[in-house]
Amino acid sequence: MTNKHDLISSDQVEGTAVYSPSGEKLGTVKYFMVDKISGDVAYVVMSFGGFMGMGNSYHPLPWKALHYDPRQGGYIVSLTREQLEGAPAYAQDMSPDWSNDTYGQQVDTYYGGLPHV
Amino acid sequence: MTNKHDLISSDQVEGTAVYSPSGEKLGTVKYFMVDKISGDVAYVVMSFGGFMGMGNSYHPLPWKALHYDPRQGGYIVSLTREQLEGAPAYAQDMSPDWSNDTYGQQVDTYYGGLPHV
Repeated sequence: MTNKHDLISSDQVEGTAVYSPSGEKLGTVKYFMVDKISGDVAYVVMSFGGFMGMGNSYHPLPWKALHYDPRQGGYIVSLTREQLEGAPAYAQDMSPDWSNDTYGQQVDTYYGGLPHV
Repeated sequence: MTNKHDLISSDQVEGTAVYSPSGEKLGTVKYFMVDKISGDVAYVVMSFGGFMGMGNSYHPLPWKALHYDPRQGGYIVSLTREQLEGAPAYAQDMSPDWSNDTYGQQVDTYYGGLPHV
């Protein structure tokens, strides 16, 4: 027996809205970063369009920070605005160098040290 | 210390060409199925456009059946034509019910019993 898997198509995840726990729309999922060898999703990259005057910024989040809510038809991010404001982010046209671990480790360190709301 | 992760963006995987080990172009990656809870990529769904007269058929493959080849700029699938021909597949507009495990188990059973080339 295999365990029950709840599967979702990658193209359904991309473009899906992301909400705060209080129901405020924060942005959308743009894409995610996949480990080429293991096939694990390492980070979900969200776009905050004009979020707090930051322009179109891209925030990589750990997969586990997002929870799908069928009622809203989108993801709820279990982080506060303050946590998101202080998080590693980059401009849309300034993708970090994902080919080495430096950037990913910044993301891991940031979220690894944060209590979830 | 974290291990070295080799990351690729989901939107770079989608649309990437898939080749046979001998270099023949078989099709492209359309999307992949992600486990909502764990964030693991469960299946990579390839499109074989008009492959052997089957029309635009979609084949879910285990992630590990694909290997990225930087020289070709695409994935090499370590399966023979015969293995792909006999594999679970569906028409573009006839997506299977991924919400239960029945279809995924067919895929697992098929590839689990196959020696890789």
